[in-house]
Amino acid sequence: MGFAATILTLYPEMFPGPLGVSLAGRALERGDWSCETVQIRDFATDKHRTVDDTPAGGGAGMVLKPDVLGAAIASVGEGRPILAMTPRGKPISQARIRAIAQGPGVAILCGRFEGFDERIFEAYPQIEQVSLADIVLSGGETAALAILDACIRLLPGVMGAPDSGVEESYENGLIEYPQYTRPQQWEGRTIPEVLRSGDHAKIAAWRKARSEEDTRLRRPDLWDRYSGDRDRPASGARRKNQEDQA
Amino acid sequence: MGFAATILTLYPEMFPGPLGVSLAGRALERGDWSCETVQIRDFATDKHRTVDDTPAGGGAGMVLKPDVLGAAIASVGEGRPILAMTPRGKPISQARIRAIAQGPGVAILCGRFEGFDERIFEAYPQIEQVSLADIVLSGGETAALAILDACIRLLPGVMGAPDSGVEESYENGLIEYPQYTRPQQWEGRTIPEVLRSGDHAKIAAWRKARSEEDTRLRRPDLWDRYSGDRDRPASGARRKNQEDQA
Repeated sequence: MGFAATILTLYPEMFPGPLGVSLAGRALERGDWSCETVQIRDFATDKHRTVDDTPAGGGAGMVLKPDVLGAAIASVGEGRPILAMTPRGKPISQARIRAIAQGPGVAILCGRFEGFDERIFEAYPQIEQVSLADIVLSGGETAALAILDACIRLLPGVMGAPDSGVEESYENGLIEYPQYTRPQQWEGRTIPEVLRSGDHAKIAAWRKARSEEDTRLRRPDLWDRYSGDRDRPASGARRKNQEDQA
Repeated sequence: MGFAATILTLYPEMFPGPLGVSLAGRALERGDWSCETVQIRDFATDKHRTVDDTPAGGGAGMVLKPDVLGAAIASVGEGRPILAMTPRGKPISQARIRAIAQGPGVAILCGRFEGFDERIFEAYPQIEQVSLADIVLSGGETAALAILDACIRLLPGVMGAPDSGVEESYENGLIEYPQYTRPQQWEGRTIPEVLRSGDHAKIAAWRKARSEEDTRLRRPDLWDRYSGDRDRPASGARRKNQEDQA
């Protein structure tokens, strides 16, 4: 049995979408994973099939009703993590992705409008509130697609080369080193000498140094964690440098 | 003329994908935005239409060739930001999304395999290397979809209520307050009393307090910046300006 993905959404036609082609699409055809959708609207109880209502206390937008959401969530069996995509959530990490990919599957609840009635998180404390990035989406669906993509590529047999995925960004707390390929000369630019040396130890050392250097310059947040450097003024200066270059 | 999105990809069939339905789909039909794809493979020069090659210095995976990428990028006109989705990039921010959405459009370069030959970023320094989240995707396509979704919902006329998007997560450095809607009683859980008070000042104060409290608990990274900015209003304003322009 493959990795079972269930997406709770008002737009089931968005799935598998981009995950129906390429790497994920071939894995879907092979049965390495399955993609089930649950239409949240099917759990509405009135004749208009209402799923949302105005926010208590006023404000723009609409809020997904707790009774409808609760019934939809209850319809998903137990035994898999349930994620709710929300900008109020904890940022997803590669470590969490890896843990999910090693399990039997995942259910992902996608919001629209102004989000979920908060009471569903009290009634279903097993739901993980997860954020993809510090940007606001029109709904959780594109976030769910990215998270599923990240999980699927880690499933056994999905990636072409079994080594891929070991030495990559975030896995060791650093961003990846820069990559080069043929042609050796391109528009007057050459591949760094060391990469053509055939000296594996030297290449590994160069890559580690570039990973560290680029993490320090581009991702001071990751670098602080990696190096255990708590010198705030210094890290602030680095961050400012990076912004100036951006 | 609407917001012009161009996606450079090996999988043009992934677009508009989920953005062809719902809010973004209706905006696409109205011409509020357009979705053009550029097939990177069309710029390959050999008879096998090769787009990638093995990494210089060894290692798993394949690297997108600089000559092919360069030709594809050169085919995109000037006047719009060009983003390259890469885990080596700077994390995308809502401020950057807002700035892009206010412009004429965006071009997004999607990698696959082990990424791009680094020399394209030297040859085209205007390319912004951008990361969506600290997770590794099979390619940049799902990330591009999320970024486009975030831009499209901000385009004039796209969101139902003109107020939506003002008081929301990240826009003020905090995550959003929790939301509630009818029914007032659900499985023994009630909407917080204050939200039913009709006292707008009290409601606003409660929401701000909950935003701050939840940011402190769930997003200590955002909280540190928010509370630091509040303590140092001058430098906070400067940084916000920089981010808006970045």
